[in-house]
Amino acid sequence: MTITLGKLAETIGAEVAGDSAIEVSGVATLETAGPKDISFLSNPQYAKLLETTQAAAVIVSRGVKSERLNLLKTADPYLAFSKAVIALHGHRRHPHNGIHAQAFVDPTATIGENTIAYPGVFVGPRVKIGRDCILYPNAVIYDDCVIGDRVIVHAGASIGHDGFGFATSKGVHHKIPQIGNTVIEDDVEIGANAAIQRAAMGSTFIGKGSKVDSLVSIGHGVRVGDHALLVSQAGIAGSTTLGHHVTLGGQVGVAGHLSIGNHVTVAAQGGIIGDVEDQMTLLGAPAMPLHEARRVYVVFRKLPELLARLKQLEEQVAELAADRSK
Amino acid sequence: MTITLGKLAETIGAEVAGDSAIEVSGVATLETAGPKDISFLSNPQYAKLLETTQAAAVIVSRGVKSERLNLLKTADPYLAFSKAVIALHGHRRHPHNGIHAQAFVDPTATIGENTIAYPGVFVGPRVKIGRDCILYPNAVIYDDCVIGDRVIVHAGASIGHDGFGFATSKGVHHKIPQIGNTVIEDDVEIGANAAIQRAAMGSTFIGKGSKVDSLVSIGHGVRVGDHALLVSQAGIAGSTTLGHHVTLGGQVGVAGHLSIGNHVTVAAQGGIIGDVEDQMTLLGAPAMPLHEARRVYVVFRKLPELLARLKQLEEQVAELAADRSK
Amino acid sequence: MTITLGKLAETIGAEVAGDSAIEVSGVATLETAGPKDISFLSNPQYAKLLETTQAAAVIVSRGVKSERLNLLKTADPYLAFSKAVIALHGHRRHPHNGIHAQAFVDPTATIGENTIAYPGVFVGPRVKIGRDCILYPNAVIYDDCVIGDRVIVHAGASIGHDGFGFATSKGVHHKIPQIGNTVIEDDVEIGANAAIQRAAMGSTFIGKGSKVDSLVSIGHGVRVGDHALLVSQAGIAGSTTLGHHVTLGGQVGVAGHLSIGNHVTVAAQGGIIGDVEDQMTLLGAPAMPLHEARRVYVVFRKLPELLARLKQLEEQVAELAADRSK
Repeated sequence: MTITLGKLAETIGAEVAGDSAIEVSGVATLETAGPKDISFLSNPQYAKLLETTQAAAVIVSRGVKSERLNLLKTADPYLAFSKAVIALHGHRRHPHNGIHAQAFVDPTATIGENTIAYPGVFVGPRVKIGRDCILYPNAVIYDDCVIGDRVIVHAGASIGHDGFGFATSKGVHHKIPQIGNTVIEDDVEIGANAAIQRAAMGSTFIGKGSKVDSLVSIGHGVRVGDHALLVSQAGIAGSTTLGHHVTLGGQVGVAGHLSIGNHVTVAAQGGIIGDVEDQMTLLGAPAMPLHEARRVYVVFRKLPELLARLKQLEEQVAELAADRSK
Repeated sequence: MTITLGKLAETIGAEVAGDSAIEVSGVATLETAGPKDISFLSNPQYAKLLETTQAAAVIVSRGVKSERLNLLKTADPYLAFSKAVIALHGHRRHPHNGIHAQAFVDPTATIGENTIAYPGVFVGPRVKIGRDCILYPNAVIYDDCVIGDRVIVHAGASIGHDGFGFATSKGVHHKIPQIGNTVIEDDVEIGANAAIQRAAMGSTFIGKGSKVDSLVSIGHGVRVGDHALLVSQAGIAGSTTLGHHVTLGGQVGVAGHLSIGNHVTVAAQGGIIGDVEDQMTLLGAPAMPLHEARRVYVVFRKLPELLARLKQLEEQVAELAADRSK
Repeated sequence: MTITLGKLAETIGAEVAGDSAIEVSGVATLETAGPKDISFLSNPQYAKLLETTQAAAVIVSRGVKSERLNLLKTADPYLAFSKAVIALHGHRRHPHNGIHAQAFVDPTATIGENTIAYPGVFVGPRVKIGRDCILYPNAVIYDDCVIGDRVIVHAGASIGHDGFGFATSKGVHHKIPQIGNTVIEDDVEIGANAAIQRAAMGSTFIGKGSKVDSLVSIGHGVRVGDHALLVSQAGIAGSTTLGHHVTLGGQVGVAGHLSIGNHVTVAAQGGIIGDVEDQMTLLGAPAMPLHEARRVYVVFRKLPELLARLKQLEEQVAELAADRSK
């Protein structure tokens, strides 16, 4: 699609500083953009590229200036960029509509209008899926799960497999039927090969607008609030509850039976082993409040120096003590 | 299914304290149970819910009392609960018998009686699978693997793919054919999207009754003993041997070529880099014996305070030394 | 296949110390080898097994001697072993040629000669795949991805699913169409259930000869150089660049937007949060240069002792100070 810069600016809510009449047709990185592409700068780390980019125009925040470039100025360049991608490229066009012949949908399942199931998808008995969903190849939805509208499930993700629930008696682990299900609300996206268990009883729950990245693991009975961001390879053990707007960095682990508040953020590889209050930002394993963790890790790296200073002190004190007893 | 409380008590090996004649038909959590549901209390953390639950009866350990509730008393409430779930709900009823038409089973593979393969399952050449197994959608069993009886493999799990074996010469990694297989004994359960490599030579081995959670990774030539619990996202590198009754918490990593004893437990996110004796409980990365690790982590969190105290001592000692030299 | 030891030695570039005329037909571990099997010793940890192995001959490095065994001496036993496995066992023989009827290949995709797609494979629109590739069951290649020659993709791996890219505005995460793709060069191997995202713009890239293990996660826009070894469950966040010959141990995490040099090695469970220069070997989370990390972790384990010594010093110094003020 080709439109003028002026028209694009209107669509994405930006202001043109430069030539509104030029035509643009694509979006690219600052480094690879050509004379028909627009690009964007949201991370100041890359500001130098403004001097060399061949882009037709660059989406920037209001304060940025350039003598050589057409600029699209806006309060939120990243959001404007996302709108530009949609305007110029659109979302994926699927190679077929509806349920592909090589997918399997149980006759007792119900699937809403415009939902697409790619080859290899499995939708089990009594599953309910809303409208405008996309189930990518080999995604699996176990029996009785409930999926809202506009939900995207990427390749190989499994939703609603049995929770890891066993009653151990005399050293033998006896399987406990997992009679609950998984409920996924509207506008959720589930990454490739993610694994979201069904509840032992009741529902494992992913709140509306939450985004779950590739290879994330969610245990049985977990409740993820609305608008979460769970980055790749994070894991949440059973029966833990997350408030809304929680962000877990990559490879974060959260223990079971915990209560994590709203707007909590955990840095990558963090380990959460206790309840967390609203608004906390945590770092480390075990996770600590950000400012505390930073101080701890600074000293951590200096441990050999600390030990050396301690030894020196011990010698000095021994000397002083010896002096005294003379 | 609806039965009297007395009949259920008999089935699950519990004693009724209350009205044996009432009828129950389901199992639910303390919070969600209705007047036809039984529930259970095994974690004292939730004891307060006994005051408010609407359950018809609650399975509890012998010491628990309640004036308002029918109780089912037993030495092992969790085990009794698991029996109650089986009695009232049963295990999953599958939508078909045997090998689904959308599964693929190589003609040279053999599959025992009553084994179910869901759509998208792949069973490779010369695979042997026992009876009463369940292979959920898109589970993959590579050539020559051997699977016992009553084994459950969840969606997307891969068993017997090539080990990560390369001979590096002049900076190029040359693939070593992985001519071994994977052997999975009776009563094992493998979680969704778990990945269990075949051995380079011989067999990767999962002992009977072991339970492997979602997204667990097991390297080539690993030997997991009987009755293990390997929690989600744990990983075991090649050629390591685990004794029986080993529990690895979520995201635990075990290095290769190690020998881990019987009844070893590793807390979540632990990192095992050396052999481990029987009965050890380990915590941390690198993992330490539990009591040692706890003390280490207590001091770890106080490192900035430690540094401050060290600095203060240095000043005091410098003062004392200065005094002395007067 | 049965050949003489002399002939095998020729094939694998080794020298016979012993009887060149004996016939061998297989490869096995030192412990399990029988009188027709050859075995190998590359890890000195297992040298004792030379005294008991029943192998017909053992591949060893030049310095090794044995009175009881036929030896195949070579500068690189592991490489020679890999050649012996290929000579005696060969690579996997596939049960079919070409695209299996239960695979799905979009009509706009192109696939080179001798490439094999197992049942359940999905190859999306406009994908280009080279020759002599193997796509194992349920591997998924999203639209527009490009795969070189001799690439192996194991079961359930997903290549080119959408990157985790959202523009957050007023607490709502808006999906940014991921208009890039994934490019995988020649001779790459991708492990089971690995997940390699497509780029937001441009390409996620895996350089030639790189090997990616099971359950590895690679974010959008990542560039992995040639001949990498990314061990199981490692994860690389978006837009990070790795040089050539990088090795990431199991469960390593690398943050986004970083630049990692050539010949960098990170030990298992390491966490990389800053750029890394060529040739570095790193350990720990956060990762430190190996020698530094080792010293830090030695002291780390002694933290309770450190604290005790500090307390003792404090007491001594308090005493000395009290003395002085008398």
